[in-house]
Amino acid sequence: MENSFFKDLEANAQGDNVAFDDVLEHLCFNDQGLIPAIAQQHDTGEILMMAWMNRDSLLETLERKRVCYWSRSRQALWRKGESSGHTQQLVEMRIDCDGDAILCLVDQTGPACHTNRKNCFYMSVQGDHVTTIADIPEKYK
Amino acid sequence: MENSFFKDLEANAQGDNVAFDDVLEHLCFNDQGLIPAIAQQHDTGEILMMAWMNRDSLLETLERKRVCYWSRSRQALWRKGESSGHTQQLVEMRIDCDGDAILCLVDQTGPACHTNRKNCFYMSVQGDHVTTIADIPEKYK
Repeated sequence: MENSFFKDLEANAQGDNVAFDDVLEHLCFNDQGLIPAIAQQHDTGEILMMAWMNRDSLLETLERKRVCYWSRSRQALWRKGESSGHTQQLVEMRIDCDGDAILCLVDQTGPACHTNRKNCFYMSVQGDHVTTIADIPEKYK
Repeated sequence: MENSFFKDLEANAQGDNVAFDDVLEHLCFNDQGLIPAIAQQHDTGEILMMAWMNRDSLLETLERKRVCYWSRSRQALWRKGESSGHTQQLVEMRIDCDGDAILCLVDQTGPACHTNRKNCFYMSVQGDHVTTIADIPEKYK
């Protein structure tokens, strides 16, 4: 969506800085206070998952360098890996051009998906059917 | 969010199929009829952008093998690259474990971002500031 704050930043050159607090103030949290966040394994480029952050989870992620989402089903902070141990160490956080999506470059410990598959995108559309393209590893069965 | 249809698919093994129409029926479109869609360059793993699809744009994307989003600002189908020529050829569409996010593996022509940067995630959080990490290429200035 059009956001004049981010529109003004478009012309910035590589290396130009703005204050994080100003950016945070203008991020496009939706009417539930959430912004989509993609987690990508920093060294392989694998997309691990997509979830949601609110302001608090975003700030905690940056402070602790551990990715924290907002669980919409539990309506609570979701410190990724808190129970499973499958944490995501934050390597870098990026923001998109119009301030309505977050990209977390992470170092994933263990599988990212709650099914214990490496990543959550294990269903592939193949014509008129959808094929599962990854198994749950034997050790998690 | 919990979705019993996708919950039931979790146990599927690699190679198992379900009908696309059944999956489409159960995809988690939000209250505006939209689902987040990530575009990733198929061969390099670069995350190009995140936008939204409705049912029609998703079906058109699969049919034409050209990525089509739903523009929330214009409230219209957004055939990526229709005016700029910077199209996204669909290589493969994937769906995540709980059916609430789409991943499009694409072959991007030209820059993906409307600023003419290669991808939309060109702002990096660096402590108390946010740094622009990519320039607009000279030919687009």
